[in-house]
Amino acid sequence: MEGDVGKGLVCQNTMDGKASNGNGLEKTVPSCCLKAMACVPEDDAKCHSTVVSGWFSEPHPRSGKKGGKAVYFNNPMWPGEAHSLKVEKVLFKDKSDFQEVLVFESATYGKVLVLDGIVQLTEKDECAYQEMIAHLPLCSISSPKNVLVVGGGDGGVLREISRHSSVEVIDICEIDKMVIDVSKKFFPELAVGFDDPRVQLHIGDAAEFLRKSPEGKYDAIIVDSSDPVGPALALVEKPFFETLARALKPGGVLCNMAESMWLHTHLIEDMISICRQTFKSVHYAWSSVPTYPSGVIGFVLCSTEGPAVDFKNPINPIEKLDGAMTHKRELKFYNSDMHRAAFALPTFLRREVASLLAS
Amino acid sequence: MEGDVGKGLVCQNTMDGKASNGNGLEKTVPSCCLKAMACVPEDDAKCHSTVVSGWFSEPHPRSGKKGGKAVYFNNPMWPGEAHSLKVEKVLFKDKSDFQEVLVFESATYGKVLVLDGIVQLTEKDECAYQEMIAHLPLCSISSPKNVLVVGGGDGGVLREISRHSSVEVIDICEIDKMVIDVSKKFFPELAVGFDDPRVQLHIGDAAEFLRKSPEGKYDAIIVDSSDPVGPALALVEKPFFETLARALKPGGVLCNMAESMWLHTHLIEDMISICRQTFKSVHYAWSSVPTYPSGVIGFVLCSTEGPAVDFKNPINPIEKLDGAMTHKRELKFYNSDMHRAAFALPTFLRREVASLLAS
Repeated sequence: MEGDVGKGLVCQNTMDGKASNGNGLEKTVPSCCLKAMACVPEDDAKCHSTVVSGWFSEPHPRSGKKGGKAVYFNNPMWPGEAHSLKVEKVLFKDKSDFQEVLVFESATYGKVLVLDGIVQLTEKDECAYQEMIAHLPLCSISSPKNVLVVGGGDGGVLREISRHSSVEVIDICEIDKMVIDVSKKFFPELAVGFDDPRVQLHIGDAAEFLRKSPEGKYDAIIVDSSDPVGPALALVEKPFFETLARALKPGGVLCNMAESMWLHTHLIEDMISICRQTFKSVHYAWSSVPTYPSGVIGFVLCSTEGPAVDFKNPINPIEKLDGAMTHKRELKFYNSDMHRAAFALPTFLRREVASLLAS
Repeated sequence: MEGDVGKGLVCQNTMDGKASNGNGLEKTVPSCCLKAMACVPEDDAKCHSTVVSGWFSEPHPRSGKKGGKAVYFNNPMWPGEAHSLKVEKVLFKDKSDFQEVLVFESATYGKVLVLDGIVQLTEKDECAYQEMIAHLPLCSISSPKNVLVVGGGDGGVLREISRHSSVEVIDICEIDKMVIDVSKKFFPELAVGFDDPRVQLHIGDAAEFLRKSPEGKYDAIIVDSSDPVGPALALVEKPFFETLARALKPGGVLCNMAESMWLHTHLIEDMISICRQTFKSVHYAWSSVPTYPSGVIGFVLCSTEGPAVDFKNPINPIEKLDGAMTHKRELKFYNSDMHRAAFALPTFLRREVASLLAS
């Protein structure tokens, strides 16, 4: 037990599966990760009023608001537990070519965007995710000029990138146009990111887009994808990371959404391990986001061969960028202290990934 | 909106109440905080199989494990949302003189202790809470000798304090003996803290215990209480903090559990404000704890008049203490990097509390 503390933390009862980690090495993967990997959102996570991925809940009649609509949403990446948000009103519900898209007004988190039954963002805590995933990479390099966003159709990451006046081009490749349309209608505080004249929108598959991109074009690429279930599965595999690395300049940086340290240590290990084969340096950072599984989200930060990047000590601090703190809307979460703190890892995670990380 | 960002984050829709903040100033308190303050756990949070604080949930028959028992637990400090844990087996259920005590085996978080319907700890993530609440104060002073724990009947904080070989006396004052008995039976990894010969157990009311304590006795006091609803309400009021300050040595430190930055900014402001009237310096730190509301828990750290305490840079780093990393069981969460990182505050919280904090 003592010698296997991190593993125990992730999945205490179940080590019942085997899967490849992409390195040709067979290793055990806990059932929670297997379940998430194998999840078929269409079957399991209908965007209907009571059922998401097999969980059901409704308010007890004793104290439920009479006549009030109350629905709850859970997450298949999070077996054995559920985070439920009380729904005041469903605002939008449709099926795109790629996923089910739902928007509702929650009781205490503002409007919520749900894709295939998984909460993507809420108005209350989107600041933590959007600000961290954008400024961790962009404040780690001086004068970023060309930036690519993979996914990010809600526009929130664009809004954050646009705080950086050095940036000249912001390409975004989002596969699902419905996400963009829905964000423009229901999440104007995020979709405002699309209004920046530097933004060039590409609707399509990111891997294909990157293959057509000139080599070494980007200073930074931000992968703001959904969980690696359904359409985003290919985005955590080695060929995709190679494509990303090819599109980056020497010393260019990648920031990739990378799951919960509490629940998905094995997915994190796999992702870091794959990145180590492709990039010069790989780091892991995390942030508090209440409506994501276990209340945290992680980021893998990588840089290519070239000028060294010191991710942990922002060379391009946001506090010194002209107008960056208040552009479009005030920063709510990120600051340089939070940047540095994001790289402090709990002892259990450090034990698991320390040997994989390198600067 | 721009000028009131932090407030908006806490409770977007409701600013419908007024209450005193203990300074004689009337100020608005959002309904979530009022609801939590006014909550009567006995009425609202029965430890029964399906209902906790008016929320109800059960697995959908399509995918629920046949014949499996599944129960869920929520938290009245967290209106409009619920964090549900799947219950494999209820292990203990009884009513003490003070609260309802429940222990169950969860599907993915190990055994769980619930008091008055509120999750107190789970085997999976207790490390984050216990290690941070103990080592943030004890690593901030050199050679702590006399330490008092208020609450903490599960023993986890005792286990962490006992890593410090400089400590000579560990007093603990817990009001509810049933919590201790239950922990000894079901949570041996926490209750092991009681085995330390330096521990002196006092069953009773902490305020009374402190009034009888010699003035200036303790190097550190750790208040590991439950949420300020029910029996722990008095523990967030000014007279109690004055009693704590009196019991501390010059330059002694207090670490007090202090809610979620995402949900309870007003309670945090009140607590900091009260502490500022009593202590020389007041700081706020936070940690990720998945099973607490919004996935975080905060700590108010105070020091009395006397030798200055630099909370943010541990003077007594745990990595340099002989045997501390592995005493009883390995550290899982805390390390000196996490210590320093814990004091980095999101911009929204910094805006609210910066003027109140002082070193």
